Amino acid sequence: MVRQQSFPPPQRLLLGPGPSMVHPRVLQAMSTPLVGHLDPAFLTIMEENKRLLRWLFGTANEITIPISGTGSAGMETSLVNLLEPGDEAIVCVKGLFGQRMAEVARRCGAQVKEVQAPWGRIVDAADVRTALRGCRKPKVLAVVHAETSTGVLQPLADLATLAREHEALFVVDTVTSLGGHPVRVDDWGIDVAYSGTQKCLSAPPGLAPVTVSPAALSVIHQRRQPVQSWYLDVSLLSQYWGTERVYHHTAPISMNYALLEALRLIEAEGLEARWQRHKRNHEALAAGLNALGIEFASQEGHRLWTLNCIGVPEGVDETGVRRALLDEFGIEIGAGLGPFKGRTWRIGLMGESSTAANVLAVLSALECVLPRFGFRVEAGIAVAAAQRVLAQAKD
Amino acid sequence: MVRQQSFPPPQRLLLGPGPSMVHPRVLQAMSTPLVGHLDPAFLTIMEENKRLLRWLFGTANEITIPISGTGSAGMETSLVNLLEPGDEAIVCVKGLFGQRMAEVARRCGAQVKEVQAPWGRIVDAADVRTALRGCRKPKVLAVVHAETSTGVLQPLADLATLAREHEALFVVDTVTSLGGHPVRVDDWGIDVAYSGTQKCLSAPPGLAPVTVSPAALSVIHQRRQPVQSWYLDVSLLSQYWGTERVYHHTAPISMNYALLEALRLIEAEGLEARWQRHKRNHEALAAGLNALGIEFASQEGHRLWTLNCIGVPEGVDETGVRRALLDEFGIEIGAGLGPFKGRTWRIGLMGESSTAANVLAVLSALECVLPRFGFRVEAGIAVAAAQRVLAQAKD
Repeated sequence: MVRQQSFPPPQRLLLGPGPSMVHPRVLQAMSTPLVGHLDPAFLTIMEENKRLLRWLFGTANEITIPISGTGSAGMETSLVNLLEPGDEAIVCVKGLFGQRMAEVARRCGAQVKEVQAPWGRIVDAADVRTALRGCRKPKVLAVVHAETSTGVLQPLADLATLAREHEALFVVDTVTSLGGHPVRVDDWGIDVAYSGTQKCLSAPPGLAPVTVSPAALSVIHQRRQPVQSWYLDVSLLSQYWGTERVYHHTAPISMNYALLEALRLIEAEGLEARWQRHKRNHEALAAGLNALGIEFASQEGHRLWTLNCIGVPEGVDETGVRRALLDEFGIEIGAGLGPFKGRTWRIGLMGESSTAANVLAVLSALECVLPRFGFRVEAGIAVAAAQRVLAQAKD
Repeated sequence: MVRQQSFPPPQRLLLGPGPSMVHPRVLQAMSTPLVGHLDPAFLTIMEENKRLLRWLFGTANEITIPISGTGSAGMETSLVNLLEPGDEAIVCVKGLFGQRMAEVARRCGAQVKEVQAPWGRIVDAADVRTALRGCRKPKVLAVVHAETSTGVLQPLADLATLAREHEALFVVDTVTSLGGHPVRVDDWGIDVAYSGTQKCLSAPPGLAPVTVSPAALSVIHQRRQPVQSWYLDVSLLSQYWGTERVYHHTAPISMNYALLEALRLIEAEGLEARWQRHKRNHEALAAGLNALGIEFASQEGHRLWTLNCIGVPEGVDETGVRRALLDEFGIEIGAGLGPFKGRTWRIGLMGESSTAANVLAVLSALECVLPRFGFRVEAGIAVAAAQRVLAQAKD
């Protein structure tokens, strides 16, 4: 009896902050019988994943590998390998994931200076310049590209210049941008970037792609003490992912299968086309929300295409609406985090979830549900507004 | 063209040190469409996994959860949460995984005393007693139950008593024993135990079940400084896995589906029956190897049922035999590690891989392959010896 209730779970349309929808080909890859983690056939798959990840990150970095954990393990990998006790790190904080970066850096024993921006806004490069000038020898400048808690896309060009000027390593969280927004690691002068599989790559959660520049690698090789995490030690990992194939830990075989299929789907679509798809569907959703009178919580001109962080209308029951969407329409959207808890919703349009059909599905479901919670909606107005954007994009 | 070569990979019979074979029902679970990591349906699955893991570990520990990484992440979780800089830790080292425990403990800043045994032998409790007496205040006594690099099963009763007498927390690696050998966390006085999904649980690699006793949890809550790993911080993880459901990181949804199905298969078989199956198939394999004149590298009376570490006969090409088994029979067996590299093979009979058919398959393949490498074999002798054991076990 219990069995029927808990598994398999109900079907969902995943429009939250991740996981996003997974393509049937990727799901099928997950169920492929396993080979060993040192099998020649698996080594070929590892090479293919490294090649495709380099292409996706826009980098020639040799060390471009999927870490055996979720996006947060990617964050931890990036910081624990670079930072040693006493090192100075500047961390830009404009939401939960910037806070997390600062916390992880502090747990490395680093002297962390946070450069803050209010939730929903980008960090000002001038503030970062001031912070850098106050440092003796900043080792790391860290920033979240796409802040999943606020829906804000941080411009990186000025920060990259500042990092270069101060000879700090530039560490960028691309969890919610990689595969949805342009990310060009080498062109932009990024030293370490990380992401997760369950957002715009549309694979299940479980791996964290990470790329490490030669400059960052050289800093890692000159550490005074071992990396505090054995599991996430890049020098050890690179012996398994490099030509030596030295056993480190048992790689998550099935997740690497899934990553390969997900990357091949991205390759087949093409990056430019994929970015345009994310942009168009975001604009269609935004038009619909605007027609409803729902406002974005993120700063205009700096909104993510991949995750839409919007204000809950005054007086509306935040959890009630989400529960109705889930129970009656099978649609998941995300709640707010931190100071945005109870005040925002987060609608993700990432990877396979970013489709015209899904934009119309969530808008029409909102049109049905919101009036019940005391928010007046003119029937069809949001859907119509979105349809106009979608029609224009087709021309 | 590349596509056809790299994926899907060839079919393998996995008789190495893991991953082991995965039941079709578990593979199917991996391809189930995803729900969100805070979806009520997923929370039910989490509860079911916790319940079944408690039953499997033989514990009532509230904190009994799958860590989002492989077995080595389980090891790191166990040690980084307990140890702070300056703490004394006794680590039993009789193979690679004991060495790894010591290394991880040192990276926590602990003062590590290694109690060594030669590779292939168990650690002597008298040596542990001596080491404990030389400590001011030993915080942790750590040991590998089933040493995957040597095929040795460490008796735990005396060590548990010593840990209790010295008020040290007893940490046990059950990566290659849980689900194949008896593991009784509460009865045996284990404070923290961890495992991996890809050995005797026969799920793909990617999760590390960990259980933490109330005594260990109390030590964690009294830490002077934060756990150096944010990703593996048990206090934070327990807020997600507990009733609060506070977002920490995105749980690997599909791997949790797979774990649930794998645990249900174990529940359906029953633990006693499962242990007996592992014992019988090990004995059949051992009889076959004995008939061939191949010797175990592990101490008699302390051999694992789950992983058979055997000596490569004098003059035989170690890698040549493994390659022939893989290329011609699709059978993976493992190489030796560390000082055993080039001198041993490791034949895993774990979880779904532990069947009479697989015992006969690997023995008959060895009978075919070994003569080519200059090792004389009487045709059928190993298979016949194994069959006799299997027939007796049926009576």
